[in-house]
Amino acid sequence: MSKYWSDLVSELKPYVPGEQPKMANLVKLNTNENPFGPSPKVIEAIQRELNDSLRLYPDPEGQALKDTIAEYHVDFGINPKQVFVGNGSDEVLAHIFQGLLKHDKPILFPDISYSFYPVYCGLFQIESAVIPLTDSFEIDPNDYKRDNGGIIFPNPNAPTGRYLGLGHVEDILQANPDSVVVVDEAYVDFGGETAIRLVNQYPNLLVCQTLSKARSLAGLRVGFAIGDEDLIEALNRVKDSFNSYPLDRLALAGAVAAFEDKQWFEDSCSGVIRERERVTRELETLGFEVLPSKANFVFARHPGHEGAAIAAKLREQGIIVRHFNKPRISDFLRITIGTSDQNNALIKGLDAL
Amino acid sequence: MSKYWSDLVSELKPYVPGEQPKMANLVKLNTNENPFGPSPKVIEAIQRELNDSLRLYPDPEGQALKDTIAEYHVDFGINPKQVFVGNGSDEVLAHIFQGLLKHDKPILFPDISYSFYPVYCGLFQIESAVIPLTDSFEIDPNDYKRDNGGIIFPNPNAPTGRYLGLGHVEDILQANPDSVVVVDEAYVDFGGETAIRLVNQYPNLLVCQTLSKARSLAGLRVGFAIGDEDLIEALNRVKDSFNSYPLDRLALAGAVAAFEDKQWFEDSCSGVIRERERVTRELETLGFEVLPSKANFVFARHPGHEGAAIAAKLREQGIIVRHFNKPRISDFLRITIGTSDQNNALIKGLDAL
Repeated sequence: MSKYWSDLVSELKPYVPGEQPKMANLVKLNTNENPFGPSPKVIEAIQRELNDSLRLYPDPEGQALKDTIAEYHVDFGINPKQVFVGNGSDEVLAHIFQGLLKHDKPILFPDISYSFYPVYCGLFQIESAVIPLTDSFEIDPNDYKRDNGGIIFPNPNAPTGRYLGLGHVEDILQANPDSVVVVDEAYVDFGGETAIRLVNQYPNLLVCQTLSKARSLAGLRVGFAIGDEDLIEALNRVKDSFNSYPLDRLALAGAVAAFEDKQWFEDSCSGVIRERERVTRELETLGFEVLPSKANFVFARHPGHEGAAIAAKLREQGIIVRHFNKPRISDFLRITIGTSDQNNALIKGLDAL
Repeated sequence: MSKYWSDLVSELKPYVPGEQPKMANLVKLNTNENPFGPSPKVIEAIQRELNDSLRLYPDPEGQALKDTIAEYHVDFGINPKQVFVGNGSDEVLAHIFQGLLKHDKPILFPDISYSFYPVYCGLFQIESAVIPLTDSFEIDPNDYKRDNGGIIFPNPNAPTGRYLGLGHVEDILQANPDSVVVVDEAYVDFGGETAIRLVNQYPNLLVCQTLSKARSLAGLRVGFAIGDEDLIEALNRVKDSFNSYPLDRLALAGAVAAFEDKQWFEDSCSGVIRERERVTRELETLGFEVLPSKANFVFARHPGHEGAAIAAKLREQGIIVRHFNKPRISDFLRITIGTSDQNNALIKGLDAL
């Protein structure tokens, strides 16, 4: 605390990201990174851009990337003016909170959800009302039929991994025509169906995605949102009042290539899904309860062991998973799906407990 | 305007960056990019990082870069906790406005200055009082001896190019012990002396720099700030409430290498300074008044021609410079120093008017 700080700063409760340990040879299953490397075409595209042109500013609009993302979703009738791009979906979400979720009424999000949402509320001084998931850790659309200034939830949800079908998403959209409903689809490509297909039916729908998970580019920092042009215009206005050039030349080039290599993408997602189903079965064999997941992680608890204790013992073996010391979920572990070898190490480590 | 927008959005007056035309063969002297490419060691460092590790998040702290920047300034006694890094200095400035310049009293900045400052004030709802430069377009420290909630100015100033000596900067610092004084040194390496040497004497001093200009990495988006640990802590808190990972893996690797290659840096800066002095002489020969510049651009006007008219005629010849249609400076052109060939083209183009 300092007299130089704005009043806001001392009230902030910053987000704490999953640990990025610098030790080698760890089985790192704590931050939901993709176990497979990105498409070789991404590497090649960045390679081509890696030259003296770095002296020049990138395109402030990221137009080539917006065009590519729109074209990728052409079956849903998306045009480039319906696309917003940012420096990771965390930045995109920040602009969404400031530009579209700050109203006189509290916004709604689940009690068990992405823990950055309450942090954004603190940063932009937005009131919120937390809606408990059901006892089976699901979103019940009926709980979102109350007065609000906006709604946001991850789908699949994190850290539960549970997916809400698009029929239920529509239920929420229809019940809230005066609110922006943000569907945060960081993990949707691992078995869910995207709500982007609904964008042109619902002017209040904004879908947010990232290239950090299914496209294996957490290290490149690219996220995007798709919605009605009117919603995107709000985000552009905030972005152009914050940072004209959020995406560097290399990230723009790599992101375009990531969307162009559909085969790599499909193979990568299938590989993760296959391993997820195997890990789920193995965990269940070991006595774990595993929530049904459509993400690249599973959320699991063991009736005989505390979550924190399991995490600590795995750590001794060089295996890192994520434990949240929070109400309702402190028994659980969130375990990223790794390579076959990493998953085998995990199962072996758990079996030894 | 839309019912979905937060109240703020409709009031925003976004920043308009210099045009990034996509035509080839332009003599592009409008956005103060470095005419020389970045250090080859930057390219090599990024090359080494360009692999499957892109699947992993970058270090959220950017610790290696902070260590490198601190080491670079070791003669001034800077330690890594006094360094903040961000996605271009525009993002760093945004966090500074929100975290350190939002108080009950208006902040002060020059009337002719970086035009993003009033935009940040709009975004974070900060009151400001604009202080006119003197008739010779200089900052007079005496004008900053009044009640305020913070002070910010570029040094060298943009778009004037004029540099304020560190004695005068100290004068402002000493007169304002209760305010944060931000010295925005985007252009300082082209002949100015950095205020970083004063950081450990003045707990209210924050110095902001970028890798976009003297280090020729506008395309990579890296900026930083150096100040008392207390000020840096405020920026960390804002950043960790906004985006955990603002710098991607490639940008972090390239930025470290940029600081390690001092020889390239010194040669590059000398080359720009040499050309700036030549362009100044040639412009003066053509009858222009040129403000004394310590930046990689000059600010010049001709008594016989309007600024907008000159800019338009240059454009017909494929030469782009920046004209600001603003009070006091609408006669002027801001001309980036290019390569010798580009500068020759500029002089030839002006001579033909």
